[in-house]
Amino acid sequence: MQVTPIGEREIGAAREYFVGLHSRLSDAWASLDPGSAQHRDEWTRPPTDVLAGNGRLSLIELGATFDRAGVAFSDVSGAKLPAAASERHTGIAGQPFRAMGTSVVVHPVNPYAPTSHANVRLFTARGGEMWWFGGGFDLTPVYPFDEDARDWHQAAKAACDPAGPSVYASLKEACDRYFYLPHRGETRGIGGLFADDVNDANEEVGGDFEHCFALIRRIGDAYLQAYVEVVKRRRDTPFGEREQAFQRLRRGRYVEFNLAFDRGTRFGLQSSARTESLLMSLPPRAEWRYDHHAEPGSPEARLADYLKPRQWI
Amino acid sequence: MQVTPIGEREIGAAREYFVGLHSRLSDAWASLDPGSAQHRDEWTRPPTDVLAGNGRLSLIELGATFDRAGVAFSDVSGAKLPAAASERHTGIAGQPFRAMGTSVVVHPVNPYAPTSHANVRLFTARGGEMWWFGGGFDLTPVYPFDEDARDWHQAAKAACDPAGPSVYASLKEACDRYFYLPHRGETRGIGGLFADDVNDANEEVGGDFEHCFALIRRIGDAYLQAYVEVVKRRRDTPFGEREQAFQRLRRGRYVEFNLAFDRGTRFGLQSSARTESLLMSLPPRAEWRYDHHAEPGSPEARLADYLKPRQWI
Repeated sequence: MQVTPIGEREIGAAREYFVGLHSRLSDAWASLDPGSAQHRDEWTRPPTDVLAGNGRLSLIELGATFDRAGVAFSDVSGAKLPAAASERHTGIAGQPFRAMGTSVVVHPVNPYAPTSHANVRLFTARGGEMWWFGGGFDLTPVYPFDEDARDWHQAAKAACDPAGPSVYASLKEACDRYFYLPHRGETRGIGGLFADDVNDANEEVGGDFEHCFALIRRIGDAYLQAYVEVVKRRRDTPFGEREQAFQRLRRGRYVEFNLAFDRGTRFGLQSSARTESLLMSLPPRAEWRYDHHAEPGSPEARLADYLKPRQWI
Repeated sequence: MQVTPIGEREIGAAREYFVGLHSRLSDAWASLDPGSAQHRDEWTRPPTDVLAGNGRLSLIELGATFDRAGVAFSDVSGAKLPAAASERHTGIAGQPFRAMGTSVVVHPVNPYAPTSHANVRLFTARGGEMWWFGGGFDLTPVYPFDEDARDWHQAAKAACDPAGPSVYASLKEACDRYFYLPHRGETRGIGGLFADDVNDANEEVGGDFEHCFALIRRIGDAYLQAYVEVVKRRRDTPFGEREQAFQRLRRGRYVEFNLAFDRGTRFGLQSSARTESLLMSLPPRAEWRYDHHAEPGSPEARLADYLKPRQWI
């Protein structure tokens, strides 16, 4: 199936949604962590012959609720699309491109509150002749709760269902597959959604630009609501040094995935993206211990069972 | 130039050197950190149709002198050489191979004592028809000292000079090029040596198997002596929380390099190497702060000048 080109109007509408989502997410984290400073800035990358861009960033670091809560919007245009941008559309590597989107990673202070990540984005090449949306969200608990995982996946399914009956199952499976640490034999967390190829040539999602864009908006909106809920539910759980120590080790795994496997990060490193925005996803502190194993039967040992793909609905 | 095949005798001699170096390095770290436990183990990977191997490991973790001092010997044979094993010898990707060597990473407790890394290795393919040594060492200070950098490079040069007059300059430059974080615009540290292609077809190094092997032995031996010296010189320097905080941030950079760029780590992740040995190079703790900059004129700000290639001799 052929992709129907899009124009400035469609690209502008997507940009407006991404900017608005950046602002809503930033406001949400600020209201969950009212006593902590939130750094906000806008940046423009001076255009060169290969790259130009602008973006917005908000960040709470070492706050009362969040160790790190970062939201980045960026809109980058380049003369040559790096190969890492897409596994499927290898034919357009080296072509002029524009990549825009909003991504967010939140590491709460409380080890009972899970880390979360979401990203919604639009890639276009050759001014809109080729385009595709990507988007999704995933949850990474340190101490997992079935209730949280079910609610998370319920929100994911509700966002997908209007796009087609098999969309949730497909994006859920893609998420389990993508956020996987092969060297550890475990998923990054309990998953969610991962879409990398949403356009009118995608037979699974189906539909035109508006149909695809509506799915991406529902994904962004669902993430915001679902994550605020789980943070409110867990942020006041009492915890001590034991839970924090385990949290730091689990954050080591998060760093491993992001630096060694995450395609977005690798794309960023290849395309000379703004390093500080790119690495905002890393936790403020991570630890590694040689051959660490949780004591059998301990609350920490429970996590392993959750780091295998599972049906939550 | 053609590579002259080697046989079991040469491969066995290399193995013996690597095992002996593993043991000498392990003993050296133990004697620099006499009060701390040193974990030692041997492992065997049950052979499958694609991979078999064995190895030895020693590790001091959270000791009095060393936050982490790990030495790993491994000898791994496989049915198909992963592409990441060599950038140059792409022709033998997919061939039966054997990779053996000793690698070491040491992160001292004292922020004035630099982190160091060394690796000596032998790759063979098709039973010795194709082979090459690799090896080198590099130093990563948190608070740099000219004296340490000069002594380090002096030791590097002395190890190279018997192999030919341009060998040091060539391996020093390769080291500066390899241990580079493009997204940070800085080298990992003050460099040293990096050789990835040492055999009798290498015109720079010249000579037969014995000539190449002798160079690799001098590199391994020089590392041991030079690093023990710098640790003894710096380990008792008084320090406080300020220096430790900066050390943790610099260790974040070390993690970035190793997970995102290091070819050895990427080879290991691709070849399902033993994860715990592979990630032994990571520091026990690392931190990231958004947009951190050392105060101009501070001792921390001095480091930036050292993270550009420089002639130390």
